[in-house]
Amino acid sequence: MIRTRPVNTDDIKRLNLARVLRYLHEGGELTRSELVAHTRLNRSTVGALVADLAFAGLVEEGPGSGGTVGRPSLVVRPTPTSAFVVAFDLRVDRIVGAAYSLGGHVLSQVERPRADGPFAPAKAVSKLVECTTELLAGVPEGCAWVGVGIAIPGVIDAETGLVRKAPNLGWIDLNFVELIEPAMTEAFGASPKIMLGNDANLGAIAEYVRGAGSLASSVVYLSGDVGVGGGFVLEGEVMTGSSGYAGEIGHMTVNPRGQACNCGNRGCWETEVGRDAILRAAGTSITESTVPEVVRAAMAGDQESLEGLQEIADWVGIGVANLLNMIDPDVIVLGGHLAEIYPVVYERIEARITRSRPLFETRARLSLPSLPLGSTIVGAAEIAFTALLRDPLNEMERSLALVAS
Amino acid sequence: MIRTRPVNTDDIKRLNLARVLRYLHEGGELTRSELVAHTRLNRSTVGALVADLAFAGLVEEGPGSGGTVGRPSLVVRPTPTSAFVVAFDLRVDRIVGAAYSLGGHVLSQVERPRADGPFAPAKAVSKLVECTTELLAGVPEGCAWVGVGIAIPGVIDAETGLVRKAPNLGWIDLNFVELIEPAMTEAFGASPKIMLGNDANLGAIAEYVRGAGSLASSVVYLSGDVGVGGGFVLEGEVMTGSSGYAGEIGHMTVNPRGQACNCGNRGCWETEVGRDAILRAAGTSITESTVPEVVRAAMAGDQESLEGLQEIADWVGIGVANLLNMIDPDVIVLGGHLAEIYPVVYERIEARITRSRPLFETRARLSLPSLPLGSTIVGAAEIAFTALLRDPLNEMERSLALVAS
Repeated sequence: MIRTRPVNTDDIKRLNLARVLRYLHEGGELTRSELVAHTRLNRSTVGALVADLAFAGLVEEGPGSGGTVGRPSLVVRPTPTSAFVVAFDLRVDRIVGAAYSLGGHVLSQVERPRADGPFAPAKAVSKLVECTTELLAGVPEGCAWVGVGIAIPGVIDAETGLVRKAPNLGWIDLNFVELIEPAMTEAFGASPKIMLGNDANLGAIAEYVRGAGSLASSVVYLSGDVGVGGGFVLEGEVMTGSSGYAGEIGHMTVNPRGQACNCGNRGCWETEVGRDAILRAAGTSITESTVPEVVRAAMAGDQESLEGLQEIADWVGIGVANLLNMIDPDVIVLGGHLAEIYPVVYERIEARITRSRPLFETRARLSLPSLPLGSTIVGAAEIAFTALLRDPLNEMERSLALVAS
Repeated sequence: MIRTRPVNTDDIKRLNLARVLRYLHEGGELTRSELVAHTRLNRSTVGALVADLAFAGLVEEGPGSGGTVGRPSLVVRPTPTSAFVVAFDLRVDRIVGAAYSLGGHVLSQVERPRADGPFAPAKAVSKLVECTTELLAGVPEGCAWVGVGIAIPGVIDAETGLVRKAPNLGWIDLNFVELIEPAMTEAFGASPKIMLGNDANLGAIAEYVRGAGSLASSVVYLSGDVGVGGGFVLEGEVMTGSSGYAGEIGHMTVNPRGQACNCGNRGCWETEVGRDAILRAAGTSITESTVPEVVRAAMAGDQESLEGLQEIADWVGIGVANLLNMIDPDVIVLGGHLAEIYPVVYERIEARITRSRPLFETRARLSLPSLPLGSTIVGAAEIAFTALLRDPLNEMERSLALVAS
């Protein structure tokens, strides 16, 4: 049965405003002609939409920042002081935070180390409020605060925002939004909408919108760390799956007679390509070394390290080939420590992929993450802009109470 | 970047007509109030749209076929004699064909055995034209022929309709549409649009629209035969992947030290759950037995057959668990011989799934195919209706030349 919403004439203006603003947010400055070409709306419609967005303070027109041959043409761009979001990435060993303006520019940044292991929710709340205070200090006066996005290394229920399982934080069925929202309101007088996302899903969103997948229609982002996570964006939508477990690719069985996994199964992909597997293959362990050290040793000619990484490369290739056979995305971004080992053993990885799917040539491209501050936090910022980019004028009105000062 | 099309006022009427007709095609007879509720359009809009569709002959109003308590209420239904499609399923051992009316009723059926192995394209064309002649004889006079859909056991290029690889037919990079269209035109004076689809993808479409997945938003259909194929429908769209290879799940590596596969790799899923694996596990082979015979023997208490099927069940469970970990659909339909073995060993399959993903409870439901004539051919009929259901009035005008008599 059909499950889409109908479109009526009332929706069109809102959809078109959202469309123009999203192009500007993702693409930066554009001439009116470029907007006409991209949106496929006619010139007068684009003019009226730009005027409405400008009246709301969201966009401005001025000379372009490009070359200066001849008369500089006018461009439309997001007003960088109009609206901003706060984004966080809760990692195993630290909190990374940033404030981003509409258009995706970094306004301020913060980083706090934290001890490995469980993270008491109350402590997480107070740390994030503290970091937010610091981030807000770097936001221009009058800029409207339209959202908060937080990347969580775990399974998030897409509908409720509940953190179902985040083993590295020690969180199970935790409604983190319900905890942090009152604290934000107390600290800042009000709280914008707070969105949570799985870290690999957010990495995939960021690479799709602004990174290695910006010309693709489907992107998989693999986050290699202690475990291996996966995020999958298809035509702009994250595939979360029926129960929120899509992308739990680290627990794909690739070696039924292999190592026992933390999850209780045997031969999961992450038992073959996770951090401990890499260290073990290189003849070392977490108490003695790290993945970057193994990579440096291999590049300096250490034979045991290099052979270890080549063994890992075979398993990376098998898992990537399975991904290609199952969902065949345009781009697969190798994040986390997979990005570190790739430059050393990419030939072996690609040879194993070819060996695993001899019948099928593929257009899919392997790529390294391409966003300097990290794909995950950029994805957290993007979901924080969701409400504004869906209904720009109404959302700006709603957010006025949250103007930073 | 955004890659959707804008919506302008000119599109709305066409979208709404399409929306109403699709509800009727998929849902059968509906009262105007039900149409209002389903489409979320207002009553007068629905009235005008129904009038336009009725004027074009596509729908009719009359007393409902339901209970007779009180005054029977008027319903709108697709006019069964208004439009039809011809659908084919090219199987390994036979051709199955049917003509379907708008609304999904079978008007006529045909079946022709064919020898296992390569199928010369010219022979396939003449067989299909011959079958079409037979099918058209069963179509009511005046009914407009709006499409042909053909299910192919192979990889189809979504954009061009090129058959890239269909090993069981012996077709490689074959433009079958270019071959059959002139033959159809010669035989019938004109040819409606001919659509090709991968058999597992079409199975997934059919189960999503009318079958086990009709209340779901994502459906995977697994076709177990000599090999194992997979089709994946998400929110009504088939996921074909970047190169058309999404769903090549039979070639997922699950056992790197396992059997050599026909594809040249080792330990592909289909080497563990394909037809030959089932027969081998049951201590027999293709020259001596068939999968249904093994299943019957196991049900009659033959120990070797039962143990063989239980071994296969473990591998089915591992592959299904990988599917759940990667894409986590609402429903997984076990088609082909997987449907035959499931009733005998479902407990073992489900136990293996639980063992493979102990951390993740899941809402996904395993199901048997639910469409009597076969999911695949119903899917072929559905894609044949694509053009009509996208732009009903214009498509009816275009198809008048093809009215069957």
